[in-house]
Amino acid sequence: MDVRATDITMKSAALAFAERLHAAPDKRLARFMGELLTDFADLADRMDMSRDELQAAIGFLTEVGEACSERRQEWVLLADVLGLTSAFERRHARLPDEATPNTLAGPFYRPGAPRRADKESICLDGKGTPLVFTARLRSSDGGPVSAARIEVWHANGDGVYENQAPDMQPEFNLRGTYTSGPDGTVRIFTIRPRGYRIPDDGPVGRLLRQLGLPATRPAHLQFRISASGYRTLITHVFDRSDPAIAADPLFAVDPALLADFTATPDGGVACSFTFILARDEHHRKQT
Amino acid sequence: MDVRATDITMKSAALAFAERLHAAPDKRLARFMGELLTDFADLADRMDMSRDELQAAIGFLTEVGEACSERRQEWVLLADVLGLTSAFERRHARLPDEATPNTLAGPFYRPGAPRRADKESICLDGKGTPLVFTARLRSSDGGPVSAARIEVWHANGDGVYENQAPDMQPEFNLRGTYTSGPDGTVRIFTIRPRGYRIPDDGPVGRLLRQLGLPATRPAHLQFRISASGYRTLITHVFDRSDPAIAADPLFAVDPALLADFTATPDGGVACSFTFILARDEHHRKQT
Repeated sequence: MDVRATDITMKSAALAFAERLHAAPDKRLARFMGELLTDFADLADRMDMSRDELQAAIGFLTEVGEACSERRQEWVLLADVLGLTSAFERRHARLPDEATPNTLAGPFYRPGAPRRADKESICLDGKGTPLVFTARLRSSDGGPVSAARIEVWHANGDGVYENQAPDMQPEFNLRGTYTSGPDGTVRIFTIRPRGYRIPDDGPVGRLLRQLGLPATRPAHLQFRISASGYRTLITHVFDRSDPAIAADPLFAVDPALLADFTATPDGGVACSFTFILARDEHHRKQT
Repeated sequence: MDVRATDITMKSAALAFAERLHAAPDKRLARFMGELLTDFADLADRMDMSRDELQAAIGFLTEVGEACSERRQEWVLLADVLGLTSAFERRHARLPDEATPNTLAGPFYRPGAPRRADKESICLDGKGTPLVFTARLRSSDGGPVSAARIEVWHANGDGVYENQAPDMQPEFNLRGTYTSGPDGTVRIFTIRPRGYRIPDDGPVGRLLRQLGLPATRPAHLQFRISASGYRTLITHVFDRSDPAIAADPLFAVDPALLADFTATPDGGVACSFTFILARDEHHRKQT
C-alpha cells in the first residue's frame, strides 16, 4: 500500500496559491506574498513541519496579538528582537560610509525635552554616578557643525527611563535639548546609564528563552541630532565596557557607536563622542 | 560620496541573528527561526523592501491580532486562505493513493448531532431543494464498510450553517449522525447546500481583495466518518457544477472530492458518492 504523502509537498501548494495571483490589484504585495509563501513552504518541506507545529506557530501569533495593548506593541518588539528593525534602518538610511550610523529610535523617545545650556545637567533627582558627555559634531565633508539641535535621552543607574516610571523619577529626568556651540561641541552633564531588560514577560520573551537569546541591552545614551543642511541622525552611543555589548537583543550595536566611559578624579566618569553628520543632498540641491 | 546602503543586506543581518542561536535550548525551533528569517531577509533584499513596507507588515499583523475574539480566530483564517491548512492536512494525512483525501475540518463542526436512520431527513425547517445523498463506504483494500459512524453537516440553501444563525434555524438543522448498512451504504435525506463567503470583513478579507482572490467557497457537504479498523476520515464533497469550484478560497477542492448533483423527477436533486476509507495500520498490527 503506497503512501502518497511523500509526493505531496508544501511547495506545490504554495505554487498553486501563487498561480492565483495573476489578477492581483496590488502587484507588489502579490509578488511578496507569493514568494514569502513559497519560501515558507520550502522550509516546511525541508523540516517536514507537522500539523502540531503549524498549530504551535498559529498559537504563537495569537499570543503575540493578545499581548498587545495601548501600552505595549509586541509586534514591534518581535521585529526588534529578530534584528529586522535595525537591519531595515541600516540598509535604508543610505548614509555615506564615514557618517555615524542611524539606529532604531526605540519606544522611549519623548519630543519637547527642556532646553539646556552647555554644561547644564539633565539629572533632576541627583541619583547616580556623574557623567560628563562631550558631544562633538562634525560634517561628513569636514568641519564642525554648529547650532545643531541635540536631543538626548537615556535610562537611569537602575536601567529605567523616566517615562517607564513616571512616579519614581521627575518629569523629563535624563532628557534634554542642547545646541552645539561654534566649535560643534556641547557638554552634557548627566549620570551614567545602565543597561536594561527588554519587556520579556510576554510571548516574545518566551521565544527568546527558547532560542537561548539574551534580553539585556548594553548601557547606552540615545540621541536625535538635527541641523540645517544635514540629515537628521537618530542613534545610540554604547558603553564599550558593558558585558552585554556583544549581544544587544535589538542588534543596534555597531563598532562606530562604541565609546569609552573613563573614571575621573571626582568619582564620576567622562565620555566624548564624535558624531559625523551626513549632508542632506536634497537640501543642497534646493539651496 | 559613496553610499554604503548597497553593501548592507538584510541577509547579512539574518545571518548575524542565526549565529546567535548555537546555544538554543530548542534546537528545532532555532533552526526554523534561523532559516525563516534568512529566507525573509533574502526576499526583502530581492524586493528592496522599504521601512514603510516593514511598518505595513507589522500593521497587518497587529490588525489580524485585533480582529481575533472568542468568536473569531483570524490567524486560522489567514492560514486557511494561504492554503496552508489544506496543504498540511494533505501532506500529513499520509493516506494510501486510493483513499478519499482528508480535508480541513473547518469551524462549523459540532459533535453530538442527533442519530438518524437510513432515509431519515436532517432538514428540520423544510426549506430548500430536496437532496438525496447516497453515501457508499468502501475499504481501501476492497469491500463495503458497514456499521461506520457517518456525521454530516452542511450549510442551508442560503449558505448559512445552523450554528452561525442559531435564531434562524432549528438546533442541529442539517446535521446528523448515520450508520452505514451491511452493504456499506446510507441514504441521507437533506436539502441542497449553497456556497458561502468566508468572513471577509477583517484584515484577511482585505488581503484577499488586494491580492484579487475570491472569498466564496463552492457548495459542499462535510463528513466525519469513523469505523473500527479504519482511519477516521474528515472530508468535503463538492458540487462539481458550482461556478466557484475552480477557486475554493481554502484550497480544499480535490478532483477526488467532486460529485454530480442530478435533477430528479420530483424537483429535487440526487447525489451519490463513494468514500474509500484507509485501513488503520496501527490498529491492524495490534489486533
